[in-house]
Amino acid sequence: MSTYDEFIVAVKDIHRLQALQGHLGWDRETIMPEKGAAARADMLSWLAKEAHGRLVSPQLGRMIDDLATLDNLDEDQQANVREMRRAHDKAVKLPEQFVADYARSKSEAMMAWQKARADSEFSAFEPHLEKLISMTKEKIAYLEVEGTPYDALLDEFEVGMTVADYDPLFAGLRQRLVPLLDKIMAAKASNPDPEWPEHLQFPIEEQTAFCTKVSEAMGFDFQAGRMDASTHPFSAGLWPGDTRFTTRYDLSEPFSCLYGVMHETGHALYEQGLASEHAYTPRGAAVSLGVHESQSRFWENQIGRTPAFWKAALPWFTEHFPDAPSWDAETLNRIANNVSTGFVRVEADEVTYNLHVMLRYEIEKQLFNGDLAVKDLPSAWNSMFKSWFGVDVPNDRLGCLQDIHWSMGAFGYFPTYTLGNLYAAQLLESMADELGDIDQIVESGDWSTLLQWLGPKIHRQGSKMTPAELIESATGSAPSPEPFLRYVESKYSRLYGL
Amino acid sequence: MSTYDEFIVAVKDIHRLQALQGHLGWDRETIMPEKGAAARADMLSWLAKEAHGRLVSPQLGRMIDDLATLDNLDEDQQANVREMRRAHDKAVKLPEQFVADYARSKSEAMMAWQKARADSEFSAFEPHLEKLISMTKEKIAYLEVEGTPYDALLDEFEVGMTVADYDPLFAGLRQRLVPLLDKIMAAKASNPDPEWPEHLQFPIEEQTAFCTKVSEAMGFDFQAGRMDASTHPFSAGLWPGDTRFTTRYDLSEPFSCLYGVMHETGHALYEQGLASEHAYTPRGAAVSLGVHESQSRFWENQIGRTPAFWKAALPWFTEHFPDAPSWDAETLNRIANNVSTGFVRVEADEVTYNLHVMLRYEIEKQLFNGDLAVKDLPSAWNSMFKSWFGVDVPNDRLGCLQDIHWSMGAFGYFPTYTLGNLYAAQLLESMADELGDIDQIVESGDWSTLLQWLGPKIHRQGSKMTPAELIESATGSAPSPEPFLRYVESKYSRLYGL
Repeated sequence: MSTYDEFIVAVKDIHRLQALQGHLGWDRETIMPEKGAAARADMLSWLAKEAHGRLVSPQLGRMIDDLATLDNLDEDQQANVREMRRAHDKAVKLPEQFVADYARSKSEAMMAWQKARADSEFSAFEPHLEKLISMTKEKIAYLEVEGTPYDALLDEFEVGMTVADYDPLFAGLRQRLVPLLDKIMAAKASNPDPEWPEHLQFPIEEQTAFCTKVSEAMGFDFQAGRMDASTHPFSAGLWPGDTRFTTRYDLSEPFSCLYGVMHETGHALYEQGLASEHAYTPRGAAVSLGVHESQSRFWENQIGRTPAFWKAALPWFTEHFPDAPSWDAETLNRIANNVSTGFVRVEADEVTYNLHVMLRYEIEKQLFNGDLAVKDLPSAWNSMFKSWFGVDVPNDRLGCLQDIHWSMGAFGYFPTYTLGNLYAAQLLESMADELGDIDQIVESGDWSTLLQWLGPKIHRQGSKMTPAELIESATGSAPSPEPFLRYVESKYSRLYGL
Repeated sequence: MSTYDEFIVAVKDIHRLQALQGHLGWDRETIMPEKGAAARADMLSWLAKEAHGRLVSPQLGRMIDDLATLDNLDEDQQANVREMRRAHDKAVKLPEQFVADYARSKSEAMMAWQKARADSEFSAFEPHLEKLISMTKEKIAYLEVEGTPYDALLDEFEVGMTVADYDPLFAGLRQRLVPLLDKIMAAKASNPDPEWPEHLQFPIEEQTAFCTKVSEAMGFDFQAGRMDASTHPFSAGLWPGDTRFTTRYDLSEPFSCLYGVMHETGHALYEQGLASEHAYTPRGAAVSLGVHESQSRFWENQIGRTPAFWKAALPWFTEHFPDAPSWDAETLNRIANNVSTGFVRVEADEVTYNLHVMLRYEIEKQLFNGDLAVKDLPSAWNSMFKSWFGVDVPNDRLGCLQDIHWSMGAFGYFPTYTLGNLYAAQLLESMADELGDIDQIVESGDWSTLLQWLGPKIHRQGSKMTPAELIESATGSAPSPEPFLRYVESKYSRLYGL
């Protein structure tokens, strides 16, 4: 066996162990009996330990060193060596004991957060958050990266992105989104959005059938995947031929399910479109959280929340919900795009969503690069929210306790959500340049050309390039916020007649 | 870490890998999307290879050798050393290349068998069976066991059992079962069994609710397990707190589902009752196929196919199937025990079931210890069937192609089904000695004392003893066919007024 072949065997072993974790995670969130929780946690941590042991193994390090000296590797092989180099070098810097302690602190913090959020009691979470932040700072020190401490965290979730990239990006967005929001809120005051009729029920079977139809129309292959229910919708690209996503149901309105399904189907189409001949290697895996989010937001918002979508979907909607008001496509679209200054990120519209993300980014930056103390976090959150959204946060449950991420030690994750929105808008502009009027395609109900455009440019590329290179290669331009701003300003100006 | 602790870490790793195979196997048979098949097969074979590599590792061998010299191990520890010694010593005798070739031949044979069975075309399966038997003989040679070649196979599925044990056992059974069958068939001719009304439908939801009720009454903990549907019912004790079983539905009658559920719940109660503190070690695992089958057959037949059961279950039956004929408990019980000379083992009653098993045993014995050629297998099968059951086998699909076992290379497996029936009857006699009238307990609908009797004597014992020692320890007598013969003769004499 050549060194590269030997290396790939080791790489695949690591990714197989991770894929097994993904499978057990899916099972836990969808169908596991409750008393299986302890053994499941134990099995997941065993798999993580097995994968970590192989990732940090000196043999793998030596193979990577040897491969770096070769000049006959093709681009796919180079991508695998590059990505494994990054993962290995990072992993070996963290002492084994630290990794184990950190994992335990995270799972304790998550339990504390669940209770603290339910009780809206920040003080119950505070010591755990304090500990996680202090351990995360310790981790940053081990990683010995250049740049600011927060850069080390940002890089973990979107390779190559730093404070120096995000700061001007977010400032530019904020500068145009805050005034747009003000104008929308003023317009809404005189022309309120239509609302779902009270007491009307949308049966689960009909929601499932309607959403399955939409997911199929998007191109999801149900012979190579499943849709199930879970508390928090998610998507899991388990392995070739088996991609699963979940949704949840609100009996009083079908849009929470619908847009959850479109979002998760967007993720799932990326997974179904990966190059299966590269399965269990970085080359065959999604490149980043930001690019992944671009796929979900593309379908959920830029396709799904348009009058064109509703022109195609209205007959399906009427078929499955004959008792709903006989709204036309424009009205359904207006409901689907309801802008509000709600407190919760995951319920936010496209205008406020990125403000929610930026708020978290600013807080994280102050926690790691500045001197914000954990005890001052709630007041920092609330005063920033007031100044951007114009409303007072009534309690920490709707404020700084709302997201799970910090309890998982996932600091630096949030900005990738905004990257997803930006990438999606940039892809849409580029797609329109090549395919012509996208609205016309969407209206027709046959969306196969959209998926056919994304497949070779994004999905099949896996991690061959870095995220920024991938977006540039797909669209011809480096990542930029301008397409998103053009998109959101034009969309909402039309919606609210601004 | 002591040598024993180190040994246990290695043992648990092997069993975790096997448990993961069990989980993926369950998923494949119940919910996997069809295009996931290839990646699933690949992942299962990777897990098998990982487990095998650890099982044959020289380090494990050395630890076992070291532990064998210690005299301070307790009984549980000794059981783990004994069982791992057996597994390791057997595994190291098989060359790695042979194991891989054998696995591939088995999966090719299974595909060929599926098609051959569908077409009732033995010749399409013949070359594969020929190859599997020849490779199995090669395997027997590697194993270097004492006794006849077939003994090596029998021992794999029920440790310690040989042709010298089975021959007299089966001869004794046959001697009394064949005349019993003749008498029953004569009695049936003048007094036919009642039948399910044509055109009546038993809705799946009602069958599920009814069977869930029965399974719960048996003691299955649905917070620590699930019931799902699959083509072939099975039970999988995945890991502590998570035991899953399946059933299948026949819309025209509910007994195929009911007795499938009672059978699989019997298996599942064994798994739920194992000592979880010994999880992922032999001490915490079921001891043998024969003992496992005793648990399923105990509940399915000795509890479930009795008038006492139907006295308890009649109200549930009526509640869920209000349109069924208003049969009394005796009539339902008569239907549940319908003896027939059908050709198919898995549909057989308690009298003919063991004849089906013995037929396969005799064939296997001739294949490995005698000189039966594979090409002569169908005629050997058909003539033995004619002489024991009195009817001609119409085709190989209903004859020697009916079971999956040989296509999986599982030669020597069938006899454990009969052991299960014998053990179950012996346990029932012993239980009655201690608990008093079992019918009275069953009639009451509160069966908890039955499970409480089985728990400490069988379930929690895991593999602490050998199967024969376990039965003797639970019942006070060595395994014997007499309790079964007493049971079956008395039961059917009463049923058919012989």
